[in-house]
Amino acid sequence: MRKIRLYTPGPTMVPEDISLEMAAPIMHHRTAEFSAILDACHERLRYLFQTKGLVVMLTSSGTGAMEGAVSSVLSTKTPTLCVRGGKFGERWAELCTAYRVPMIPLDIAWGESITPDHLRAALREHPEAKAVCLTHSETSTGALADIRACADAVREHGALCIVDSITGLGVHEFRFDEWGIDVAITGSQKGLMLPPGLAFAAVSDRAWESAKRSDLPSYYLSFLQARKAWEKEKTTAWTPAITLFVGLAKALARMQEEGLEALWARHARMGEAMREAVRVLGLDVFPRVPANVQTVITVPPELTYSRLSKRLYDDYGMKVAGGQGELTGKILRIAHVGYIDDGDLVVAAAFLERTLAAEGWKVRPGEAVAAAQRVLMRAAGDGGRAAASGG
Amino acid sequence: MRKIRLYTPGPTMVPEDISLEMAAPIMHHRTAEFSAILDACHERLRYLFQTKGLVVMLTSSGTGAMEGAVSSVLSTKTPTLCVRGGKFGERWAELCTAYRVPMIPLDIAWGESITPDHLRAALREHPEAKAVCLTHSETSTGALADIRACADAVREHGALCIVDSITGLGVHEFRFDEWGIDVAITGSQKGLMLPPGLAFAAVSDRAWESAKRSDLPSYYLSFLQARKAWEKEKTTAWTPAITLFVGLAKALARMQEEGLEALWARHARMGEAMREAVRVLGLDVFPRVPANVQTVITVPPELTYSRLSKRLYDDYGMKVAGGQGELTGKILRIAHVGYIDDGDLVVAAAFLERTLAAEGWKVRPGEAVAAAQRVLMRAAGDGGRAAASGG
Repeated sequence: MRKIRLYTPGPTMVPEDISLEMAAPIMHHRTAEFSAILDACHERLRYLFQTKGLVVMLTSSGTGAMEGAVSSVLSTKTPTLCVRGGKFGERWAELCTAYRVPMIPLDIAWGESITPDHLRAALREHPEAKAVCLTHSETSTGALADIRACADAVREHGALCIVDSITGLGVHEFRFDEWGIDVAITGSQKGLMLPPGLAFAAVSDRAWESAKRSDLPSYYLSFLQARKAWEKEKTTAWTPAITLFVGLAKALARMQEEGLEALWARHARMGEAMREAVRVLGLDVFPRVPANVQTVITVPPELTYSRLSKRLYDDYGMKVAGGQGELTGKILRIAHVGYIDDGDLVVAAAFLERTLAAEGWKVRPGEAVAAAQRVLMRAAGDGGRAAASGG
Repeated sequence: MRKIRLYTPGPTMVPEDISLEMAAPIMHHRTAEFSAILDACHERLRYLFQTKGLVVMLTSSGTGAMEGAVSSVLSTKTPTLCVRGGKFGERWAELCTAYRVPMIPLDIAWGESITPDHLRAALREHPEAKAVCLTHSETSTGALADIRACADAVREHGALCIVDSITGLGVHEFRFDEWGIDVAITGSQKGLMLPPGLAFAAVSDRAWESAKRSDLPSYYLSFLQARKAWEKEKTTAWTPAITLFVGLAKALARMQEEGLEALWARHARMGEAMREAVRVLGLDVFPRVPANVQTVITVPPELTYSRLSKRLYDDYGMKVAGGQGELTGKILRIAHVGYIDDGDLVVAAAFLERTLAAEGWKVRPGEAVAAAQRVLMRAAGDGGRAAASGG
């Protein structure tokens, strides 16, 4: 018997009851009943983003919302600095280029995080920059950016701060209004515990002003079209993925019930526990400043990613992710985001440990699970003393 | 006790077992297992479109695929004739305008169908036209266009023939390759019996050639990005709506099992039966050439759409649609598309009849259901003789 468990940074596991909720008979979307669901989603998304403004809701993957941000808010007259430190930072640059937005690349090594000082220096060099596109949690490398400090640097310059927080939201502290962000994007299949198919964007007043001046074509992914439909009739501009919105209302209610601080603390505990397990196994965490979305492990020369991931899945049903682009084969990514608890984390440590042992890596049976368990117990405040005396 | 039944032209009812299939634990999309599902979807979509070419699969509503067609295949150098005879014909025109494609409007009255002669005359007047955008089944009016004959006219002119068949596919005969269509669009929530969230496009070699020369920005909805990902790895360019694709494979298998000719015949029978019920009730069908997707009824001056639709839903759980734009309040639309059988059709006739009676319309109890039943029995070939002698 083998249970399948997804430890992938999207899709993430979906709560069973929410899956069943989405299997209920479909309702029509131009009804008061569905508008009430959309309204509940919208209120809860505002809480999640920490904004009083309108949140755009699209039927697309996260990339669709990134494109919507570019084509709605930017223009051929807004030189835009794109921080490229992984596949998703590169996506901002590709989108700007596709729309002929003057794109200024700011390249950092994959695995590094952009710093406010680096950003300030780049903006001094490019006084013409009117917008900056950043990645909160760069899922391709596992690196976390200090968005609050970066947003300060962008604001000092007077540029728009546009943030991909597709894997950041609901995992790391994020305060859209307070931090002065102008556009922030997220998707349904990460911290929101849903299947992919929905994407969201918080938008500041400054960004809406900029949208008025945009000369770029935008229709299906247009933020302005979304706003018009919302303000007029509390609906979406185009037919929405109805069943996913039904699930979204439930998932967001659950997140709000847990509370943002508790969500962030849970993911912090998961991240710390998994990194600790990896360290005692003698492996290295790849990014310099790791996000709590996933633990990205550098695959040592003695091991092979494809063998590890295959064994994790075939023997233990544990689905992990590998590297993309230049990191193919070089990293192994174990996500712990969304619908995941302390038990799931101990399971991940246990199967990683066994797989490494089976692949000939030197392992003292129990060391990884014990390390993870110690972190989890300490963080939860239960049994800390017992562990100290008994261990 | 009141059962809810959707007689709306999208979303349409979803088979219960397919809903439950989509509620199964989510799988990762970059796996051989999911690629096999995508491949099955792709093969079955080819059958549905009747094409040997590649079918683009997008996570979006149908409008997203329409935009993908415009931004991928057209350019600022391809004057494009857009037939506007309803809300969806207008959408083609709006999309072309948004992308600065030189747009030539061909306006017909709402409820009319474009004819090949009219198209030929317009193309003679606009020899510069390099593409024509058409609507197969104009859902806002219920009008059906003879796409085969229109495609002949477009081909004679040497222009690309781009067809919105969002509510046409799986309902009316459609043969992409044989009829020489260049792009055809459909969505998941109509004849395909699924929730909204997926859209598809068949693309001809000529359209792919045209795409190479396009100067329009396209990324998330790009047909070229979709083709690249498909040809390289049998996958989607961006994270797909995984659960909907799982349902799609099942829904398409069911459609293929029924067979295209049987699907078309079933919808023809539904359309004829409902129109007959409407006629015996003394009401008029709105479009001159009605599609079998829905029966669009002209609301007579003695009745009020909002009262009828409210009573149909409140008293009988029957959800219908009204008019949009200039037709608001003037028509009542009863859809009979997708997961719908003879029983559902008789139910629709029965509740329409009762609602009309309650609203003071002169009705002989049983006349509408009997009329519908006679058509259904005759079409099915069962009991035709008995009806003739007994009625």
